[in-house]
Formats: sequence, structure tokens, C-alpha cells
Amino acid sequence: LKDDIPKDFKFAGTHCGVKKKRKDVGIIFSEVDALTCGVFTKNVVKAAPVIYDEKILKQREIFRAIIVNSGIANACTGERGLKDAEEMARMTADSLGLKKEEILVSSTGVIGANLPMEKIKKGVETLSQTLGNSWKNVEDFANSIMTTDRFPKISTKRLEIKGKTVKILGIAKGAGMIHPNMATMLAFVVCDINITRRALCKVLRESVDRTYNMISVDGDTSTNDMVIVMANGKAENEVLDLEDEEFQRFFDAFNNVNENLAKMIVKDGEGATKVFEVVVRGARSLEEAKKIVRTILSSNLVKTAVYGSDPNWGRIIASAGYSGVEFDPNLVDLYLESIDGDERIALMLKGEPVEFDESKAKMIMSRDEFRFTLDMNSGNISTKGWGCDLTEKYVEINGRYRT
Amino acid sequence: LKDDIPKDFKFAGTHCGVKKKRKDVGIIFSEVDALTCGVFTKNVVKAAPVIYDEKILKQREIFRAIIVNSGIANACTGERGLKDAEEMARMTADSLGLKKEEILVSSTGVIGANLPMEKIKKGVETLSQTLGNSWKNVEDFANSIMTTDRFPKISTKRLEIKGKTVKILGIAKGAGMIHPNMATMLAFVVCDINITRRALCKVLRESVDRTYNMISVDGDTSTNDMVIVMANGKAENEVLDLEDEEFQRFFDAFNNVNENLAKMIVKDGEGATKVFEVVVRGARSLEEAKKIVRTILSSNLVKTAVYGSDPNWGRIIASAGYSGVEFDPNLVDLYLESIDGDERIALMLKGEPVEFDESKAKMIMSRDEFRFTLDMNSGNISTKGWGCDLTEKYVEINGRYRT
Repeated sequence: LKDDIPKDFKFAGTHCGVKKKRKDVGIIFSEVDALTCGVFTKNVVKAAPVIYDEKILKQREIFRAIIVNSGIANACTGERGLKDAEEMARMTADSLGLKKEEILVSSTGVIGANLPMEKIKKGVETLSQTLGNSWKNVEDFANSIMTTDRFPKISTKRLEIKGKTVKILGIAKGAGMIHPNMATMLAFVVCDINITRRALCKVLRESVDRTYNMISVDGDTSTNDMVIVMANGKAENEVLDLEDEEFQRFFDAFNNVNENLAKMIVKDGEGATKVFEVVVRGARSLEEAKKIVRTILSSNLVKTAVYGSDPNWGRIIASAGYSGVEFDPNLVDLYLESIDGDERIALMLKGEPVEFDESKAKMIMSRDEFRFTLDMNSGNISTKGWGCDLTEKYVEINGRYRT
Repeated sequence: LKDDIPKDFKFAGTHCGVKKKRKDVGIIFSEVDALTCGVFTKNVVKAAPVIYDEKILKQREIFRAIIVNSGIANACTGERGLKDAEEMARMTADSLGLKKEEILVSSTGVIGANLPMEKIKKGVETLSQTLGNSWKNVEDFANSIMTTDRFPKISTKRLEIKGKTVKILGIAKGAGMIHPNMATMLAFVVCDINITRRALCKVLRESVDRTYNMISVDGDTSTNDMVIVMANGKAENEVLDLEDEEFQRFFDAFNNVNENLAKMIVKDGEGATKVFEVVVRGARSLEEAKKIVRTILSSNLVKTAVYGSDPNWGRIIASAGYSGVEFDPNLVDLYLESIDGDERIALMLKGEPVEFDESKAKMIMSRDEFRFTLDMNSGNISTKGWGCDLTEKYVEINGRYRT
């Protein structure tokens, strides 16, 4: 595990008192300058750290550390919120002997409350003394960014690029307020690859579109989401750029880390008992395919049918029908499949019901993971996404989160 | 009550066996020709009766009866479904001594199953023998169109138009799969007014936009929704047209009936314990105001906070933020109000949190009905809508509806 940590990155996570007992502040630190790119929430209402980071990422491309707190989102906090975000960067820089503008800031938690800056300051001091590159350090960080998460989310990948071993490590949080276009979801991916900025940013944007933007827990997009990638070049490979033959291999490895994290977020969806994958194929365009996948993933009626292991496929077709995409229902096929693809049941063919073995369908839907495949039979574009079921537990968690 | 029934309309509802025990087929009948208009689901996947009615309403404007069944939606049933819908019209015409094209057809229930036509035929025969104009007949019809509804939904209004008493009677069903743009929601409004077709259709369209299209139970738009209005002229008023001074009074009365029914649908939202109204004011356009209202009404996080009587206003602002409307969060005010407006708490002013009395906020939110008012402070347009809370019961109902 320790061998999976990209070179010269250090981590720490501790408890400073934003939350009652659990870890609530963490740092990722690079020993050397790291090329950095970010993708942020599309919500009009952006939390202070999102506003702060977006601005500074337009001015600089080299950063050294990310400071994150959980428990309070520093969103809807006006001028004071912006000052607090900047102050978090400043105190982190002070503790680590860096400049303020080398630090990115991230928060997650309750909206509309101000950060307890004194507590965070003490937390940052503790963090700077406990930074390390052990697996325990990575786990401490992963734990420190959780809110309603039930488990920390870490994914790693190693591959050879230009004869050197490159390591990728991703850490994410998110369990609710999760919806396409970055929900309350934070993900930080660090790697030691030597890469151009344009290649790194492209990898990030495209991978986010295929992974975090294709999951839905509750249809709510948050004010605080961000995915940040840092690459410090310590793998010492010859610099990788878009035109390189090996670029695609790096993209695939990077995307694999993000897909793993995205699926973990869905699996940890508030109250969720299972994950379902939705594949749309035979679509006319990627935009249309995505719209249909996302609408199905977000339907409360689909999500409750998944919970009840009920092959009530009419709800899937109905939600595709209100996705905003025009299509001919009489062309559409719908299948229920086991996740390995070994078992497959046609539920609807060319818009009409098919007799199927209901007990077998129930059995497939009772598993931890399964898949609905919708063939639009109108083109050759496909895409996929992941969602979770809607349960009584979700309601319980969200009916009393703040209090 | 009987006096509230528009002249020369008759009703019936009975059990024929589509559902196990409860009433499942009903008729509305006019003794004389009735001008008729309809508004239908915008879902791309339309149930057979929707396709049938839309087509015939383009050819004719005079109808005599509507036949409705509940339990099976006759949606995603292909060619056979279309034939069954037409056959329902034919058998109703036969029983009532009318022509097939004088009948409209409506269904609600499970998607993807075929109608048991023999049972429906027997039902229609019973109905034709039990048609009547007592209040009990109206209630029988209202009961016969229910699916997961807990109570029948009826609203009436009387007013004077051009010296004559005009009566409006609306009957609706709907408790789930309810979302703007006509959800699994059926509403039938009959009145004895003498009115031009263009005035009647305009009244219907505009009122639907302000009422049924401004409620949300679960964000799912169904395949079967329709609102039909019939006006048979038996009030014998001088014909009403758009330019008449009294037109607005008729619109208000008609709209009032629909608003009452729409609120009943939300109140009866699957598993709902309370109704919340969302008012957006100070918006730049009606389209934007509506988008914001609908997005807030549909947010699972808002709905669970309402359930928990938790003034977690960050969720309201966050959902406005992902509504797709561009706005400056630093202009926005948010208030929590009792439904009579006597109590009012500012939760956020100009995008920043306000200290407020949390126990008082909780108390207001614990009532059957209350209101969130969002002032965008960017224009002078306002609109409102209604939603219900999301509860464990919703999950329970929809996790096992079909089985």
C-alpha cells in the first residue's frame, strides 16, 4: 500500500473541533512544486472556497498543498466566508513555510454557518506536525474529509510511462447531495507523473465528465464540489503530452481511479443498499445519451423500485420519456443484466412488454450491483452512469442531518 | 352539495376487476353536447389513451362522455394498447347509445400491462345502468379513478356569469409520479357554462400552467396525465368569450377549482405528512421564477428537511442555485412564513445567514402547511408552487407498489 503513494506527497488528518468527535481537517502536501488543475461545481451559489480556488487557479498553475475541512461548508457566508477561506490558506502557508498563494482550500458540510477559525488554526498546526507519507497518513486524510460518509474512499493505480513507474492516488468524499455536474463531492487526485499542464487539465476534465458527472445519489448539486489534481513530476518520466502514444494509457489509468471513487460514492449513497448501472446505447448523440442516463439515475420511482428489487420497468421508460430527449418509444429495447453480463433479461422490446421470468429478475435486482441497458436503436453512441437506491434510511439521515 | 353539480352531467364509478377490490372504472357523461378541451403529458412515452385522445381532440370539439379506468395505465403496450383504448371508447358508446367518437378515454396505474378488456366491458355496462347526478355518483367516480390516493379529490365553485348561475366541478386523482408538466395525474373539470371554444381552451391551458404544473411530489412525470374540461352550456348564460368583462371572473373561479385540486394532490403525496408552498418573487421572468420554484419543490434534500421540520435553508438556496437560472446569490432574501402570513422569519438576507429563533422556525415547519418565500430582488415577477415532504412512507409505498 505504501508503495502506491506517489513520490513526495504527504498527508495528514486530525480533529480540531468543527465536528464533535471525528476528524474534520486534513492536508495534502507536495514536497516540490506540483502542476495543478481543478474542476468546480456548476451551482450558481458557490461556497467561498470554490470562489477562492477558481480565482487563484486562473492566476497560477503551481501549488504545494490543499487544506480541507469537513463539518461546515463555508457556503452562503458572504464576505466573511471569503475572508475565512483566504485565512485558511494563509495559516496553512504559515505552518508549512509556504506562500499563501501556493495553497488551495476546500470545505464540505453544513451551509450557512461560519467556520470556527481559532479551532481550524489549531488543527492546521497539528497537521503540519503530523504530515507523513505512510498509508496511515493517507487514511487519516481520507477520514478527515468525510461528512455523512460511512467509509473513506481511496483508489490507487500504478503504470509505466516512458519506462518510469507512475503512481496515481485518488481520495474522495461524498454520500449525499450527489448529482451530475459535481455534487457535494470532493475528490483529490495526486500523481508523480511529469506531464504538461494542457494534458493534465484535459485528463481531469474528460475523466470528471465520465465519472463524477455520471453518478447520482439524490439529484441535488452542491455549492462546494471540486475535483483537484496535482502532478509533481517526481516519477521523472520524460514529459508526457497530448500527442504521446502513451497518453491514452495514462488517461485510462487516471480515469479508472476516478471511476472507482465515483462508484464508491454511489455505494456509500446516504441510506443506499445497492448500486445500479444504467447503460444507454444506440443513441444519436452523447448529450442525449447522458441526459437519459442521468434522468433514470435520478428518478425517485426508479430508485425505490431498485430498493424493492421490483422489475417495474415502466418507471425506467417513463423517466427516459421525460428526460427532455425526443425519441421514438417504439424503437427502444430494455434489458436487466447482472453486472458481469452473464445473466440478461429482456424487459421490453421495441416499446412493447415482453414475458419474462419475474423471479429471476427479482434475483438479479437483489444483488449489490446490477445493470439496466436501454438500447435506443437510433444511433451508435453509448454511455453509462451509476446510481443507488432510495431507502427509508436516506429519509432518516436527511430528515435530521443538521440537528 | 348536489346543488354544486353542473346541470345535466351524470357520473358513475364501480369495481370491475382491474384492481382487486376497490372501484376501478368510472364515467362522466353529459346529457347534451359538451365543448371539450384537453391538456396532455409532455412525456415522450405517451400511454395509449393519451395518444388516442390527443388525436381525436384535433378532429372534434364536441364530446359526450369520458371513460376512465384505474389500476392499469395502458402505457408501453404498443399496437394492442391503442386498439384497447379505442375499444374502450366503442364499448362505452354502445352502452350509452352514443357514437365512438363522442367518447374520450383515460387510464392510470401500472405501466406495461394490458387491460383486461372483458372485465372492463362488464364494468362499462354496470356504469351505464348506475349513471346519476347525486353527490354519491360524483364520489363514486372520484373513487374509481384513484390509485395510491388516500382520499378522493373534488372541488366545486359557483358564480354568476351574465346573470346566470354557472357551476364548476373538478375531480382529480394523483398521489405519486407527480411533477410539473402533468404527472400521473388525471383531472376532469365539468361546467355548465356557455362559452366559446377558444375561451375554454385558453382558460384550461393557463390554469393548468398555474396549478397542476406547479406541484411536485416526486419529480417523475408520467405517461398518462391529462386534464380534460367539458362545458355543456346548460347554465344558459349568453355565450362568454375572451373579450368579455366577466371572463377574468370565470377564469379565477375555474383556476380556484384547479388550485384546490392541485393542493389536494400534493397533500395526498405518497407518504406525505405536510405541504409546503414556495413563492419566488422579484424574479426577472416568469420562466425563471417557475424553474426556481420547481427545482426547490423537487429537491429530495429540501423535502427531507421539511419532513424533519429542520430550517436547513442552505438546501433551499443550493437547489435554487442548480435550477439552471443565473442569478446573483448576494441579492437573495429567504423567509419562512406561516401560511396565513402572520408569522415570518428571515433565514437569509442578501445571501448571508441571519440569526433567527430556531425553535420558532421549527414550530412553523411542524404545521400541516407553511411557506418559503425567496425574494430574488432582481425584477418584479412572482409565482408560486406546492410540494410535500419526503418520508420513509414514500419509500415503503414505492418500493412495493407493483408486487
